[in-house]
Amino acid sequence: TGVAMMKFKSPPVNSLSLEFLTEFSISLEKLENDRACRGVIITSAVPKIFSSGLDITEMCGKNVEHYTAFWRAVQEMWLRLYGSSMVTVAAVNGSSPAGGCLVALSCDYRIMAENPKFSIGLNEAQLGIVAPFWFKDTFVNVVGHRVAERSLQLGSLHPAPEAHRLGLVDELVPEEKLMEKAAAVMAQWLALPDHARQLTKTMMRKAVLDRLVAHREEDIKNFITFVSKESIQKSLRMYMEMLKKRK
Amino acid sequence: TGVAMMKFKSPPVNSLSLEFLTEFSISLEKLENDRACRGVIITSAVPKIFSSGLDITEMCGKNVEHYTAFWRAVQEMWLRLYGSSMVTVAAVNGSSPAGGCLVALSCDYRIMAENPKFSIGLNEAQLGIVAPFWFKDTFVNVVGHRVAERSLQLGSLHPAPEAHRLGLVDELVPEEKLMEKAAAVMAQWLALPDHARQLTKTMMRKAVLDRLVAHREEDIKNFITFVSKESIQKSLRMYMEMLKKRK
Amino acid sequence: TGVAMMKFKSPPVNSLSLEFLTEFSISLEKLENDRACRGVIITSAVPKIFSSGLDITEMCGKNVEHYTAFWRAVQEMWLRLYGSSMVTVAAVNGSSPAGGCLVALSCDYRIMAENPKFSIGLNEAQLGIVAPFWFKDTFVNVVGHRVAERSLQLGSLHPAPEAHRLGLVDELVPEEKLMEKAAAVMAQWLALPDHARQLTKTMMRKAVLDRLVAHREEDIKNFITFVSKESIQKSLRMYMEMLKKRK
Repeated sequence: TGVAMMKFKSPPVNSLSLEFLTEFSISLEKLENDRACRGVIITSAVPKIFSSGLDITEMCGKNVEHYTAFWRAVQEMWLRLYGSSMVTVAAVNGSSPAGGCLVALSCDYRIMAENPKFSIGLNEAQLGIVAPFWFKDTFVNVVGHRVAERSLQLGSLHPAPEAHRLGLVDELVPEEKLMEKAAAVMAQWLALPDHARQLTKTMMRKAVLDRLVAHREEDIKNFITFVSKESIQKSLRMYMEMLKKRK
Repeated sequence: TGVAMMKFKSPPVNSLSLEFLTEFSISLEKLENDRACRGVIITSAVPKIFSSGLDITEMCGKNVEHYTAFWRAVQEMWLRLYGSSMVTVAAVNGSSPAGGCLVALSCDYRIMAENPKFSIGLNEAQLGIVAPFWFKDTFVNVVGHRVAERSLQLGSLHPAPEAHRLGLVDELVPEEKLMEKAAAVMAQWLALPDHARQLTKTMMRKAVLDRLVAHREEDIKNFITFVSKESIQKSLRMYMEMLKKRK
Repeated sequence: TGVAMMKFKSPPVNSLSLEFLTEFSISLEKLENDRACRGVIITSAVPKIFSSGLDITEMCGKNVEHYTAFWRAVQEMWLRLYGSSMVTVAAVNGSSPAGGCLVALSCDYRIMAENPKFSIGLNEAQLGIVAPFWFKDTFVNVVGHRVAERSLQLGSLHPAPEAHRLGLVDELVPEEKLMEKAAAVMAQWLALPDHARQLTKTMMRKAVLDRLVAHREEDIKNFITFVSKESIQKSLRMYMEMLKKRK
């Protein structure tokens, strides 16, 4: 059918580790180069969680080389996904904070299970960190400046119904209908001639993609400076402790 | 009353041919230079159709000189209408795809007949072609980035109620009330002092107008390159055949 | 509690005179430099009016030095408020036209008394004058391009319920609950770590702040040229006469 299915399966919470991100980017690249593949549906094989976002262990107590490799991998994933010439549909079947939300925001269409216990958002500020400018640009392109400003400052995690109301996700469906709906949406998007659709997508996203490309090394440096601060390391360690206790 | 009425009357579907566009631009210029004229209501004298958009016969099997003249005329019309110092109200009394939608989007206010059989949208992608960047900029200024991205990629034609929900048109009224409503809206806008209103309008639209002015020749070249491709010529011929069969 | 309360008290209508603006900016600067202060709630001590906006007497029949000092003070107030590192909540307990609306728009969150007799908007066009580009930028960041374009061209004063519908204010509450609600919202925003919230705010607002900083002297010159025109002086005098008669 020309449609690939990508299922995140890195228990317990599909953290975006360096390894996960590298594999994700390679998979996207392969599909991109496969002329038979015109679209990809992204979902999770882990119950209740789409992706918990960037793996905090990659940002704690590592050296500069590691931080550089990690951040470059985050950038690479986003550049590939947001700039993909394929139709990308996120079937968000669980919670999706921070980097997990970015993955969903980077797709062409977001369908979420209508479970109010599932939430989504760029909640970096809650952890004492700041979403990078290109997370913000992607978010603004979806929900507009005002919703983004408020949501980012509060580090909000929006329950599915609220996320839908704000336009963060396009549609809510009962969880058992999620894949069926994703397939139907994909079929609708694939009904269009690829070339015109791809050029149109590029036209809409190029400015934001180019901005990261132009500032990529600077963005890596910023990340390293930020993550190397003792105060940030402390925040992240506390957050990890809290996560461990929760389990 | 200082209000002009412009009724598109080029049966069967008010296609924007080179001749039509030239006449349209000249009319706008005359009204613009007429100190007594402060506003213009644009509507159609053809039942069920506002304007079917750019005349595809102008893009099929012609030479480079013709394509150049045609595309310059499309640009000229938009620069005059989007940048008009008059109050411009579109009374959309029928369907309005592609270039027809652009005409409506370029006005200050859009009222549409609340007939769900009438639809409006930038459906270029459906025909295998891509809306130019300034169509897109005009669209984004009206409906925002997210709605524009989705609608342009899908080449959506939105039935009137949906167009209203998305903000593509400002108001729906029963068809028989359309002109009355347009006159009332015009009166409301003309109650403002012209000079302040005009400067405000310029402030809002200048960035997008300047962008085409700065890239006008490049945009013409892009159009010629695109339209000269055999694959595009084939798409357009197929589309014309389909339109002929429909009649 | 780390929260300051600023109550505008300059009867009869809290006009933003040179003196008022200077005092406002100094107060903001002091709070900004006070490490103990993390947020400020801005409201009015004058019944039924939040602020009537720029004091027109400062723009009538004065000399260039005065216009320069006045306009610099308007800029200074906005640069401090829109760029504040504190959490800023506007408790809009009365009408808030023009510059009064700008004050509210520059805060992080706007709560308005749900009295439909109270209205808010950038109604400069009604007076024959044009909102400066940075008023417009601030407005667009809150309500988006389309709502801003229409509202600015019409010089609309939106009754509270409409202002809420358009996103111009975030929330409506009964007037007697206004301060309680403002305190609750402030507590919610202050629950976030300051540093991450401040950097996020800067990321969202920097482009618009930088634009005025880069064009500040030019903007002052524009104001002087504009306000020095006899036609504008006449409009402003007529408006002042009308205001006097109303009382």
